[in-house]
Amino acid sequence: MNLSFIQPPQVAWASGALADGPLLRKSTRIQDLTDVFADENARQQLAGEQVVYDVEMLDTSPAEGELYTGVTHLYPGRVGCEYFMTRGHFHARREQGEVYFGLRGTGLLLLQTEQGNARLEKVFAGSVHIIPGFTAHRLINTGEEVLSALAVWPGIAGHDYAALARGFRIRVFEENNRVQAKEVQNG
Amino acid sequence: MNLSFIQPPQVAWASGALADGPLLRKSTRIQDLTDVFADENARQQLAGEQVVYDVEMLDTSPAEGELYTGVTHLYPGRVGCEYFMTRGHFHARREQGEVYFGLRGTGLLLLQTEQGNARLEKVFAGSVHIIPGFTAHRLINTGEEVLSALAVWPGIAGHDYAALARGFRIRVFEENNRVQAKEVQNG
Repeated sequence: MNLSFIQPPQVAWASGALADGPLLRKSTRIQDLTDVFADENARQQLAGEQVVYDVEMLDTSPAEGELYTGVTHLYPGRVGCEYFMTRGHFHARREQGEVYFGLRGTGLLLLQTEQGNARLEKVFAGSVHIIPGFTAHRLINTGEEVLSALAVWPGIAGHDYAALARGFRIRVFEENNRVQAKEVQNG
Repeated sequence: MNLSFIQPPQVAWASGALADGPLLRKSTRIQDLTDVFADENARQQLAGEQVVYDVEMLDTSPAEGELYTGVTHLYPGRVGCEYFMTRGHFHARREQGEVYFGLRGTGLLLLQTEQGNARLEKVFAGSVHIIPGFTAHRLINTGEEVLSALAVWPGIAGHDYAALARGFRIRVFEENNRVQAKEVQNG
């Protein structure tokens, strides 16, 4: 029997930094996001190497029933007038949900059902987002600092990006120094 | 299409208080914890109405794949020399895991497999605990303030208390002003 007191991984609530765990990291750059933003010409004029978001996650079991924990850091910026955002995805296992917690910065969580109904939740330090199954999700940074969010999701959920190849039904732009959400037909 | 910005529920990281959500609350008192502590006589001499821990959770869907979010507030105290703790449980759906995040206070998370192997992880503000499937879990407050922890778990996980009727294999006591973990045969 192990009677020692084990030091677990840690998260810094103010920054979302993960420590003392087996970590996986992935950066997504402007050059990785072809056809994700409304203004593809504007995207091509930005530096391709610029990081739009970083994801750090604990490298734990992907077995049925196990939960993953990770943090997304979405940087401030725009492609044309459209705010930086994650690619967004459905889960490959459609019934699997997810929970997001806002840690710092300000933004929006775009949720969309398979029937194409979309809605936006405010993201800020301490916000809690219960993402149901069968619901695609995308983070949008509408602020001027890093938007960091903690996520917990099932290891078996997987990702399905192809189902959103035509994009989400709402896009979020800066217009007249205000955050504006617009319905779009084909994403 | 709903283009408004929806206000989500919130959690206060410093206290674990949940707000603006559909909440369920449950208090567990000394009188509810028969035979949970080593010294049953000492338990019976405490005020039965005294709350040992409160759980608040968001009242969301329990369907397969959906995740629950809740906070446990475990108060400081002892039954005899044994620190206040939660009853602890396996999930009824044994393969289902859980994630705990320490928010305030200091304590231990006791984990035990179905084979009876137990271990202890330190709980503190920012600690992250990946609880695998097939693993019972119990919080123990070894400090002098409230121990609050945020949890995310699958809605279909359920609880199985009966499998631990003989208790966990480790108990944690205060002895000589120190936190002492001891292996026990029958819990």
